[in-house]
Amino acid sequence: MPEVDGRLMDDTQPERAMGEGRAIVYRAIGRVENDFDEPAPPPEIRAVESRIVIDPSLAEGLKGLEPGRRMMVVFCFHRSQGFDLLQHPRGDRSRPRRGVFALRSPRRPNPIGVTVVDLLAVEENVLRVRGLDAINGTPVLDLKPA
Amino acid sequence: MPEVDGRLMDDTQPERAMGEGRAIVYRAIGRVENDFDEPAPPPEIRAVESRIVIDPSLAEGLKGLEPGRRMMVVFCFHRSQGFDLLQHPRGDRSRPRRGVFALRSPRRPNPIGVTVVDLLAVEENVLRVRGLDAINGTPVLDLKPA
Repeated sequence: MPEVDGRLMDDTQPERAMGEGRAIVYRAIGRVENDFDEPAPPPEIRAVESRIVIDPSLAEGLKGLEPGRRMMVVFCFHRSQGFDLLQHPRGDRSRPRRGVFALRSPRRPNPIGVTVVDLLAVEENVLRVRGLDAINGTPVLDLKPA
Repeated sequence: MPEVDGRLMDDTQPERAMGEGRAIVYRAIGRVENDFDEPAPPPEIRAVESRIVIDPSLAEGLKGLEPGRRMMVVFCFHRSQGFDLLQHPRGDRSRPRRGVFALRSPRRPNPIGVTVVDLLAVEENVLRVRGLDAINGTPVLDLKPA
């Protein structure tokens, strides 16, 4: 069983039901740095500036990213554990439960987050962005034009 | 070394440079079905209707997805092998090379695709969509509201 940032994918996990599928393995291309060491409401996190520190060996891949443009960040909800197929939106029990695929909850079968952010600056292998709802230390999987 | 749909993550692969990062492991929640068994230009694939067949054990997670709305599909470019940090946009050598993170090329450090599609219908564990640029058999990792 591989070491994982996301979750351990063994037979004791809910993924058992998806056992037919083979493992799909990725590695972080970088990490998020900001002041949120613990989960917080997404609007609070999105309001601050975050740094995305890319592995220096991949920095050439940032060529063409232009400050002032929007960019998609794909990341791993590394603190998320388990999931429910039906969840109350934003955990608000006054709202009826919906399917996890109709929600952006981090508690999902594959804990992947996708957020479009404002790219403020590119400084060698470091991107400064605003609008990212990922906490400090979050592994980043990919960046794409928005 | 785990079996993978994406790529084998051993020391002979370009991922070696990212060796500091631990493996992040996902499993397909479903598969794409359409008439494209081989890679084709994205506009051609996007023009056809695709089916996304979700693992029946996860079908409850689709509750609240509404036909007529747009939806984000996160998938694995399972046929992609290797990557270059600088690539010609759409493989067009007349255009200057750009960084892979400023492109949507499938040949990326983590071969993840993200596409917003039109949801045409939900039939139990099967979604009919248009606008998806993924070939037949593509492993689907996640679905989110657009």
